[in-house]
Amino acid sequence: MPQWLKYGGMNLEEAKLRQLLKSLTIEEKIGQLVQLSGEFYNASDISMGPQRKLGITQRMVDLSGSVLNVAGAKQIHRLQEAYLAKGGHAIPLLFMSDIVYGYKTVYPIPLGMGASWDPRLIKRAYENAAEEAYAGGQQVAFAPMVDLVHDARWGRVLESTGEDPYLNAQFAKAMVGGFQSGLKDGKGIVSCVKHFAGYGAVEAGREYNSADMSMSNLYQNYLPSYKAAIQAGAKMVMTSLTTLNGVPATADKWLLNDLLRKQWGFTGVVISDYASIYELTQHGFAANEQDAAYKALDAGVDIDMKSPCYANGLKPLLEDGRLSEEKIDAAVWRVLSLKNELGLFEDPFRGSSEALEKANLLTPAKRQLARKVSQEAMVLLKNERHLLPLNRSGHRRVALIGPYADESKMLGLWAIHGYPKDTITFKHGLSEYLDTSRLTVEKGTDIIRDADFFAESGRPEDQASGQISDSATEKKHHDSAVAAAKRADIIIFAGGEHTLQSGEAGSRTKLRLPDNQQRLLDELATLGKPIISVIISGRPLVLTDVLADSDAVIQAWFPGIEGGHALADIIFGAYNPSGRLSMSMPAVEGQAPIYYNHLSTGRPEKTSQHVGRFVSRYTDAPTGPLFPFGYGLSYGKVTYHQPTIDQSQISSAQSVTIRVPVENTSEIDRTETVQLYLHDEVASIVQPVKRLIDFKRALVPAGETLMVSFVVKADRLGFYNQQGKYVIEPGKFELMIGPNSDETQTVEFSLKD
Amino acid sequence: MPQWLKYGGMNLEEAKLRQLLKSLTIEEKIGQLVQLSGEFYNASDISMGPQRKLGITQRMVDLSGSVLNVAGAKQIHRLQEAYLAKGGHAIPLLFMSDIVYGYKTVYPIPLGMGASWDPRLIKRAYENAAEEAYAGGQQVAFAPMVDLVHDARWGRVLESTGEDPYLNAQFAKAMVGGFQSGLKDGKGIVSCVKHFAGYGAVEAGREYNSADMSMSNLYQNYLPSYKAAIQAGAKMVMTSLTTLNGVPATADKWLLNDLLRKQWGFTGVVISDYASIYELTQHGFAANEQDAAYKALDAGVDIDMKSPCYANGLKPLLEDGRLSEEKIDAAVWRVLSLKNELGLFEDPFRGSSEALEKANLLTPAKRQLARKVSQEAMVLLKNERHLLPLNRSGHRRVALIGPYADESKMLGLWAIHGYPKDTITFKHGLSEYLDTSRLTVEKGTDIIRDADFFAESGRPEDQASGQISDSATEKKHHDSAVAAAKRADIIIFAGGEHTLQSGEAGSRTKLRLPDNQQRLLDELATLGKPIISVIISGRPLVLTDVLADSDAVIQAWFPGIEGGHALADIIFGAYNPSGRLSMSMPAVEGQAPIYYNHLSTGRPEKTSQHVGRFVSRYTDAPTGPLFPFGYGLSYGKVTYHQPTIDQSQISSAQSVTIRVPVENTSEIDRTETVQLYLHDEVASIVQPVKRLIDFKRALVPAGETLMVSFVVKADRLGFYNQQGKYVIEPGKFELMIGPNSDETQTVEFSLKD
Repeated sequence: MPQWLKYGGMNLEEAKLRQLLKSLTIEEKIGQLVQLSGEFYNASDISMGPQRKLGITQRMVDLSGSVLNVAGAKQIHRLQEAYLAKGGHAIPLLFMSDIVYGYKTVYPIPLGMGASWDPRLIKRAYENAAEEAYAGGQQVAFAPMVDLVHDARWGRVLESTGEDPYLNAQFAKAMVGGFQSGLKDGKGIVSCVKHFAGYGAVEAGREYNSADMSMSNLYQNYLPSYKAAIQAGAKMVMTSLTTLNGVPATADKWLLNDLLRKQWGFTGVVISDYASIYELTQHGFAANEQDAAYKALDAGVDIDMKSPCYANGLKPLLEDGRLSEEKIDAAVWRVLSLKNELGLFEDPFRGSSEALEKANLLTPAKRQLARKVSQEAMVLLKNERHLLPLNRSGHRRVALIGPYADESKMLGLWAIHGYPKDTITFKHGLSEYLDTSRLTVEKGTDIIRDADFFAESGRPEDQASGQISDSATEKKHHDSAVAAAKRADIIIFAGGEHTLQSGEAGSRTKLRLPDNQQRLLDELATLGKPIISVIISGRPLVLTDVLADSDAVIQAWFPGIEGGHALADIIFGAYNPSGRLSMSMPAVEGQAPIYYNHLSTGRPEKTSQHVGRFVSRYTDAPTGPLFPFGYGLSYGKVTYHQPTIDQSQISSAQSVTIRVPVENTSEIDRTETVQLYLHDEVASIVQPVKRLIDFKRALVPAGETLMVSFVVKADRLGFYNQQGKYVIEPGKFELMIGPNSDETQTVEFSLKD
Repeated sequence: MPQWLKYGGMNLEEAKLRQLLKSLTIEEKIGQLVQLSGEFYNASDISMGPQRKLGITQRMVDLSGSVLNVAGAKQIHRLQEAYLAKGGHAIPLLFMSDIVYGYKTVYPIPLGMGASWDPRLIKRAYENAAEEAYAGGQQVAFAPMVDLVHDARWGRVLESTGEDPYLNAQFAKAMVGGFQSGLKDGKGIVSCVKHFAGYGAVEAGREYNSADMSMSNLYQNYLPSYKAAIQAGAKMVMTSLTTLNGVPATADKWLLNDLLRKQWGFTGVVISDYASIYELTQHGFAANEQDAAYKALDAGVDIDMKSPCYANGLKPLLEDGRLSEEKIDAAVWRVLSLKNELGLFEDPFRGSSEALEKANLLTPAKRQLARKVSQEAMVLLKNERHLLPLNRSGHRRVALIGPYADESKMLGLWAIHGYPKDTITFKHGLSEYLDTSRLTVEKGTDIIRDADFFAESGRPEDQASGQISDSATEKKHHDSAVAAAKRADIIIFAGGEHTLQSGEAGSRTKLRLPDNQQRLLDELATLGKPIISVIISGRPLVLTDVLADSDAVIQAWFPGIEGGHALADIIFGAYNPSGRLSMSMPAVEGQAPIYYNHLSTGRPEKTSQHVGRFVSRYTDAPTGPLFPFGYGLSYGKVTYHQPTIDQSQISSAQSVTIRVPVENTSEIDRTETVQLYLHDEVASIVQPVKRLIDFKRALVPAGETLMVSFVVKADRLGFYNQQGKYVIEPGKFELMIGPNSDETQTVEFSLKD
C-alpha cells in the first residue's frame, strides 16, 4: 500500500489533518512552503523567469511541497512517485503551472478574450482548459491575471482583459469559475489569481517598475477584479513582483492581511511571484534573504516560489525567536488544507493519466470552442466600402502576404504548454475557403529584422538564428510578395509583433509594426489594390500608418491555435465579427497612459466653455485614442434609437430602468454589444467622465429591432472615497448607452437624499 | 487729502484694521475676495488664460479688491486712482501679475535657472525682478512655480526648476527670498508660490490632467518645494487647476487647511488659479457656481481669480445660511492684512512711478546679471575633440544657421512683461566676437512650418500669418543657408521649439525638433564640417538625432534677453560652461515619465543577479535617459578622486563628513558642481535608487585640487512614510558623490539603533 494512503479516505477530516501537521518536523513544515521548478527534479523546466542558482540543499528539495511548471501526466506521475517514495511523510506534491489562456488548446490572449465581451463563453474556455490540465496532472493554474492596464507599452497587457474595472471583474469571475468548476467532482484545477495588487500600473509601462496611486484610485479601478476573483472562489492568490505605494506587494501586510484576508475573508493560499521574496532584498525592503523570508511570511505569503528565502531562512528565524512556529503552522495549514481539499491524500495523481490526456487534449470539441473564442476576440477596426466579407464563390484572386501569412508561432509568449505545430495558420484557414488557383501566399519579409533584439531577449532559444533571413532570401521573399500582389485582385496583409516583443518583460516604447513590415505594407499600398490588414499583437499597437494603407483592418491579437480558421470565417462572412476593444488604441505613443474612464478635468477639450489653447489636450496629437474602448465594427448596420428611462428620480432602495431600441437595418444578423456607462455629475471625489456599469451582448436579427434594457440599482451609483470606503451620494447622474464608449446617448436621472 | 489716507500712518494697527473690516458692507467684503483682469478696468489685459464672459455686475467690478496682469506704473496709477476715487471705502487695489522669470529684464526660463545649480545667483535675479516690478507698480508676483516635474511632455516644465525635491526646494527659497527681500524696506513684491499642489504630476504629461499619487510620494517628492517656499516666508499661495487624488486642489480642505495652514502654519493669502473656482463645476466637484464658491471658500481659498463664483455666489450663500459671515471675514482679514503689511493704506502706489521705472528697468547692471544667469543656465551636452571653445582670433569662418540665428522671440511663453525688441539675439552676441568677414548668418528655415499648429494655439496674435514663409521664400532661405554652410569652416546651428510649443497648454507627444529643422540639420551634417548645435527649448527634448549630426551641442533653453551674449561668451570661452541638467533628457519619448530618483525595483537592469530578458527595461530603447540629471560638460578636465568618510557608524545625534578631492588637471579654471546623493539600503518604504541631499558649486582653478566636503546630519537620513510622517530608520546608508547623478562613487556608513 502506497504510504500516502495511510491516512485513508477522500478528504481527511480536520482532526486528522491537524494531527498530520503536528507530526511534521520543522524542516518538513518549511518544505511545504517551498516551491521549486522542474529542473530541481530532473524534469524539463518550461518556466519563464530569470534563472539563478538558488543555493538550497538537496534535503530541502526533497521536502519541498509544490512544483512549478512541470508538464504532462507522465512527468508529473514520475515526479510524484519518486517524491513520495523518498519522503518521510505522506504529503503529496502540489503541481502548479502557468496555464494562462489555455493548456494544449491555446485560446487567444486574454486581451483578445476581453474583446469578446462574452464572459460566459470564456468561462467554458477555462473549463476546457482545466479539463485538459487536470488530465495532464496539473493541480493549480497561475491565472487569471486580472491586473487592470492603462499603458500599452507594458508587455503584460497581453495577459489582461483590459482597462475597465467592471469588465475585468466579469472576466475574473468567469475564468476562476471555469478553472474551478470541476473541483466539486474531484476534477478541475485551482485558480491562483494574480498579481495582487496593482502590477498593471507600473510607471511608464516599464516592466517591474513601481506602482503608485491614491487609495480611491486603487479601490475604484485596480481592486475590483481581484475582489471578483476572490468572491468567485479563487483558492489561491499570487503577489505582484512590484511595489505599491512604496511597499513590495510580496511583503505588504496591509494588502495581504488587512485587505485580502480580513476585509475580503480570503482563506486560501498566498504564493509569491517567481523569486519575489528574494527580490525584497533587491527592492531594499529586506536586509538579506532571511529578513526577506521573515517579512514575506509575516505579511501573509504562504509559499515561496523559486527563491531560497523560506528554504534557508525560516528555521534560523524560528531559532532566533524572531518568528513563531504558530506563524509557520498557519501557512502550512493552509497548504495542507488545499492539498486535502483536492483529494491528494487519497490520490496524489487526482485521476490524471496519459490515457486521460489522450482523450481530453485538443479534441475536436475543444478546438471548436477555441475557434469560437478566436472569432469573438478579433476586432474589425475598419471596413471601407464594405470590402469585407469576401465572397468565397467569387472570382477574385487573393494574395495573402506577410510574415504571419503562414506562421504557426502565433500563440503569444505565455502559451507555454501549447505547440505551434497544433496551430491553424492563416494560410491553412483561408485555403479551406479558396483553392490554390485563387490564393497565393507569400511571407514578404521576416517578422523582425533586428538581430540585437533577439540577442537581448534572454533565452537561448530566442536567438536570432533561424528568425532572420539572410539578405538574399529576404529579397526573394520581398520580390515574390510584390509579384504576387500585382497578380492579385485583393491583398490580405498579415503582420504584427514578434512573440518576444510582448508578454512579460516585453515593454516597448514604440508601438508600431516593425519597420520592415510597415515598409512592405507601404509598398503594397502603392499598387492601388484593396488591402485587408490583419494585425497580430499582444497589445493595442499604434495603427495610424496601417490604417492609412488599408481598406480593412482586423485586429487578431495572438489568436490561438484556431486563429487561421477564425480569421477565414470572418473574412468570408461565416462569422460576423463582433469583437469590441477592451483597451483603448492610442493614436500616438506619446498619449500613454490613455484610457476612456479618466477623471473629468477642469478644462475638458470638448465640453469646456474655454476655446483654443487653454484646454486639456496635446498641441501635436489628438487627445483621444485612435479607437476608443468598446469600439469594433460588424457587418451590416444597426441604429441605436433614443433611449428612455422609466423614472427621473429614485430613492436609495429603488432602481431605474433604461431601454434602448437597437434596430438592425441590414440584411445580415449581427451581434451587438450594448454598453451602459454611468457618470456621477457631482461627487466629493471627481468621477470618471464615464464608466462602464453594464453591457448586453445580443444577436440582433436582420431587419429586426431589439429592445435592450438595463436595470440599475441605486447601490451601483457609488464610488470609493480616499479612505477606500464605498459611498453613495445623492444627486444627478447620467446614463450613457451606445455601441462603444465614444458614441453614446445620454439620459439623466437623480438619486434622492 | 486723498481718502485712502484717512486711516493714516504706515501699517495700520490691528485694531484699526479690525475696525475697517467691521465697517465694510457684505458687498465690500466680497469685493476684496474678487480678482479681475485689466480688461474690466479698460486696461490692456496681458493675461494668458481662457477667455470667457464672466457675467458679473459693474458694481462688483467697482468693489473688486485686486487686479490681475495690468502692466506699468502709468496704467496702474490710473487704475488705482480711478478706483479709489469711485469706491465707497478706502481700500486700495492690490496689483498682481505673472512675473515668473523676470519682469522687463527677462532671464532664462526656470528650467534653465535650475540648471545653474546656483540659488544664490537666482536670488539676486529675483531681487532685481522685484525691483523692476515694484518700480512698475506691481505688488504681487505669481511665482515661483515650484511644481516638481517628471514628464517632459508637459509644457509647464518650462516654469519648474526640475525633477529633484531638494534642488527645487533650494530654488523655491531663493526665488521667494529674492522677490520679498525688499519688503522690509517697503519695497520688493509679495511672492505667490504656485501651484499648490501636485500640478507637475499631470498624467501622461497632458495639460490640466489629473494627478494621482500615494501619500509617501506626495510628501517625499512633491511637497518639499512648496514647504520651502512657505518657510522662506511666501505671503501668498496659488492653488492648482488640477485634481490631486480625486479632489480639485482649489477645493481641497486637507491641502489648504489641514496641511498648509495648520501643519505648516501658513498665515497668508490663498488665491485660486485662473478661473479654477468656476472650473470646480467642470470637474464635477461642484453642482454650480454658487456651490463652487462655497466649496472653495470653505476649503480655504481667499481670493477668486477671474471667475464669477465669489462675486455672485457668496452673498446668496450667506443669506441661505450655508456660509457664515465669520468665514468671509477671515478671508477678507487676510487680504486686508496683506494690503496693510504692504503699506497700501499709506501709499496705494507704494512709491512706484514712471520715473522709478526709467531708473530701474533694464539697467546695464540688471542686464549684466541676466547675462550671468543665462551663462550659468546653458548646458554643454557634447563637445567632441574639444571643438569648443572657438578661438576668436583664429581665421575660421563661421556660418550661423537656423531659425533662431537672429530671432529675438526667444523669451519663452511666460515672459509676458518682456519685449523681444530688448533681446540680444545670437547673431548680435556672436558679432561682438567675430566681424562680418568671418560670420555669415542665415535663417535656413522657419521655426515651424505647420499652419495648423498656429491655428490651434488659441490667441489671435498666434496665427500663422507672418510666422510661416511662403514656399519660395523658404526655398531661398534654405539655399542661402546651404551655400553659406559650404563656404564656412564651422557651422553653428541654432534651432529649437517655437515659443507656443511649450509653456502652459503646450503639451507635446513628440519631443523632437520640428521636422523641417531636423531635415536642414541632417543636410548640413552631410557637408562634413564641424557643427555646433544650439538648442532653444522649454523642455528637455529628445536630442538623439541632433546629437548624431553635431560635434558639439549647447542646450540654451529660452535664454532670456541676454541669451545672445551668454551664448557667444560660452562659444568663445569667455565663460566656461557650468550648467548641469536639473531634469533628465529622455532618449525616446516612450520613456516618459523618466527621472533619476525612481524607486528601486526588484529586478534592476544593471545590478540584478538576473540576466537577459527578465529585468526592468524596455526591449526597444535604453532604460536610462540620453543625459542624466546633474549632467553637463565644461571646458577642461577634472578628476574626482576616491571619497573618504570620517566615520563608518553614527548615532542619531551625530553627523558624518564625506570628503572628495576634485582635481582640475587642465589649464583652464572651471566651476564644478559636486553632487551628493544618498541611498537608504533598507527601509520600510522602498527608497529611490539615489537622491540628491546636498551639492557644492565651486571654482576649481587650473591645475589645482579642491577638497570638497559635506556634513550629513543623521536627521537628513529619513523619509516620509505612507502616513506622510518623517521617519528615520537605523541601518546602512550609501553616500554617492560625483559630477552628475550617473557617475558617482560610493561610500557606506550606518546609523545605529
